[in-house]
Amino acid sequence: MGGNFYLCIMQNIQHLKEEFVKTIHFLHAQGWAPATSSNYSFRENGEVNFYISESGIDKGEFAVENFLYVTPDGKPIDDERRPSAETGLHSSIYQLYPEAHCILHTHTVLNTIISQFFLQQKALFLADYEILKGFSGVKTHEVNIKIPIFENTQDIPALAKEVEVYAENEQMWAFLIAGHGMYTWGSTIAEAKRHVEVVEFLLECEYRKLLLRR
Amino acid sequence: MGGNFYLCIMQNIQHLKEEFVKTIHFLHAQGWAPATSSNYSFRENGEVNFYISESGIDKGEFAVENFLYVTPDGKPIDDERRPSAETGLHSSIYQLYPEAHCILHTHTVLNTIISQFFLQQKALFLADYEILKGFSGVKTHEVNIKIPIFENTQDIPALAKEVEVYAENEQMWAFLIAGHGMYTWGSTIAEAKRHVEVVEFLLECEYRKLLLRR
Amino acid sequence: MGGNFYLCIMQNIQHLKEEFVKTIHFLHAQGWAPATSSNYSFRENGEVNFYISESGIDKGEFAVENFLYVTPDGKPIDDERRPSAETGLHSSIYQLYPEAHCILHTHTVLNTIISQFFLQQKALFLADYEILKGFSGVKTHEVNIKIPIFENTQDIPALAKEVEVYAENEQMWAFLIAGHGMYTWGSTIAEAKRHVEVVEFLLECEYRKLLLRR
Amino acid sequence: MGGNFYLCIMQNIQHLKEEFVKTIHFLHAQGWAPATSSNYSFRENGEVNFYISESGIDKGEFAVENFLYVTPDGKPIDDERRPSAETGLHSSIYQLYPEAHCILHTHTVLNTIISQFFLQQKALFLADYEILKGFSGVKTHEVNIKIPIFENTQDIPALAKEVEVYAENEQMWAFLIAGHGMYTWGSTIAEAKRHVEVVEFLLECEYRKLLLRR
Repeated sequence: MGGNFYLCIMQNIQHLKEEFVKTIHFLHAQGWAPATSSNYSFRENGEVNFYISESGIDKGEFAVENFLYVTPDGKPIDDERRPSAETGLHSSIYQLYPEAHCILHTHTVLNTIISQFFLQQKALFLADYEILKGFSGVKTHEVNIKIPIFENTQDIPALAKEVEVYAENEQMWAFLIAGHGMYTWGSTIAEAKRHVEVVEFLLECEYRKLLLRR
Repeated sequence: MGGNFYLCIMQNIQHLKEEFVKTIHFLHAQGWAPATSSNYSFRENGEVNFYISESGIDKGEFAVENFLYVTPDGKPIDDERRPSAETGLHSSIYQLYPEAHCILHTHTVLNTIISQFFLQQKALFLADYEILKGFSGVKTHEVNIKIPIFENTQDIPALAKEVEVYAENEQMWAFLIAGHGMYTWGSTIAEAKRHVEVVEFLLECEYRKLLLRR
Repeated sequence: MGGNFYLCIMQNIQHLKEEFVKTIHFLHAQGWAPATSSNYSFRENGEVNFYISESGIDKGEFAVENFLYVTPDGKPIDDERRPSAETGLHSSIYQLYPEAHCILHTHTVLNTIISQFFLQQKALFLADYEILKGFSGVKTHEVNIKIPIFENTQDIPALAKEVEVYAENEQMWAFLIAGHGMYTWGSTIAEAKRHVEVVEFLLECEYRKLLLRR
Repeated sequence: MGGNFYLCIMQNIQHLKEEFVKTIHFLHAQGWAPATSSNYSFRENGEVNFYISESGIDKGEFAVENFLYVTPDGKPIDDERRPSAETGLHSSIYQLYPEAHCILHTHTVLNTIISQFFLQQKALFLADYEILKGFSGVKTHEVNIKIPIFENTQDIPALAKEVEVYAENEQMWAFLIAGHGMYTWGSTIAEAKRHVEVVEFLLECEYRKLLLRR
């Protein structure tokens, strides 16, 4: 134990941060994080504290220095900087899903308008798409996946509570906030990224199919 | 005072120009400055003269040499080159908004057609979008933001006058010129860029929602 | 014969893999392989075994190491890793088309929704496009090209059988699987890539023309 | 005269080819030259022979070696390779417009479907767009610009004749071939590129406005 062990952990964290920055730049390059929007976090195995993106950073410029280490109640540890305003949502998700080690929130044109369009029915329903197999644990396109939609609010604790209540009764891979964005997560950075790609792909499918029905 | 102080200012200008060129290349890469269209400017703290983009340059090739230093009435200082034809609009904006230090004008498919589509109502109205918080000073999605639309004209002084009259009575973060483009500004290059991203994002949301209503 | 000859073949395989990885990164950059979807293969002249992409790889990260060498019945040779779940479809295509040396399967928004939209008529019909000349052997835009659409299934042998039965009676450059994706092939990597570009281009044309008719 | 003078011309040609390749890669990166489609040419001041792109090259891979030097009747000089099948159209344009030194032909989704949509009225009419000032000689958005549309054919001499007849009576900056693509030109590579960007921008505006009217 001791110095070497600690060094090894530190190197692992640095490696994770670098992998994560690469993923963030990918999300930004897709146009999924405009105007300093979006926020992201990860935690290590067995840890309750987590690393979350600093508030107000242009995601095309995001660097390893822009992660803040925070406690489960969202307080930065030894840090004057401000974490994302939505840190409380990340905390709730980590408590709901022990297997989750990475959370990604994107802010896209399609997740904005589809979440508004289907807000009244409180969910987007997805079925018969091969790419649904991209969701962890899904083995066939013959499934019905429900993506809940919550109303937007600036009261993050209230929103987190709503998410928790929903999660008690339903399986969930991702959720939408109307006019605001999408949250998804995974057991690794790569899995969370794959989930983002699945949802954004299907939002575009659904939008384009709506136009065909007009 | 003297040489060192002057050198320091010069280095700062060079640094600002380089940051700005990076931003211009980003805007170009989004497809927001096609066919040598668009123009951009910045000024230093406490200065009335400003730096503006040279006319007729392909924005994918724009370099630090392509800025012209001009007086508030748009005359280049010690320079034979021609500044953007719309320099007068930049002058008006700097006089209306003392806090503005950077002005960006984009020329996009969506700002072209949305400005034409809503010209009759003379404005685009935006509400209930989380990304509205990207406008300086806005703290919630529960706001009503009005983006005025002016008719296009080749008479820039007349257009600048219209903008000034409008600004006397209304809060304004950006404006559209029908079939021509969008202007926005900020206290820094980064803030002006964020405003561009907010407006272009919302123009795409609005356009796509119009199609859903057909 | 002997060592030098074998070395020469190995170098050729390495060269083909590198060219192929470049093509895969191009397809990924177009957004045609999201969320670890899509699979690809090639075989050498006169060979029955072929090289196919490993399952579950992010195609933006795909490297020469991610090819598996498999027998015509889809069994990896000296390899513990798992080939694409759709390896059986590749085998069928190679048996149907002896001239084929490369098979590309893309998973795009447009091939997903167009294949669903036209599933009832079991095919997409293309005519009067200059770009149809991009299909191997086509010399004029005045042709009628039929792209069959098969229902999606997780039973790959059954799907492969359907493709074989169809191919007995009809000329085929590509096929669609509803809600799943597109398959095409060519005598070289470059030709297969060109076929992908032709089909994806025409899917976008067809989709956009459908909207004009609403 | 002699060696030095000749060397100087050669260096200029090499420089022009390199600039042109950069422009071709830009056009390809926009998605305007898929599947080895599109062709391009330039000529030097006072020359009747011109340089044209080789047939069948992937434009993302296009290199200076892929230009062929041809006579006005489209015959390659000291070269076994095949020039673009549409070389005859380039010859006609150079004869019609002595000031033209560069011709660009793009093959895009929007020029394909808009040319088909308006084929019956034989032209696309453009007015009230600021970007029309991007056409050489146009000084205001208050103009009416007519882009003729010709039927597609594999008989290039017949098509060239049609273009010539049209040009005798009408001003022309660009033309469309239904389901096939767009041609435009300029006195320099940069001007021809700007014309491409103007037309493709306006095709997207027109298409998106058509959808608003459905």
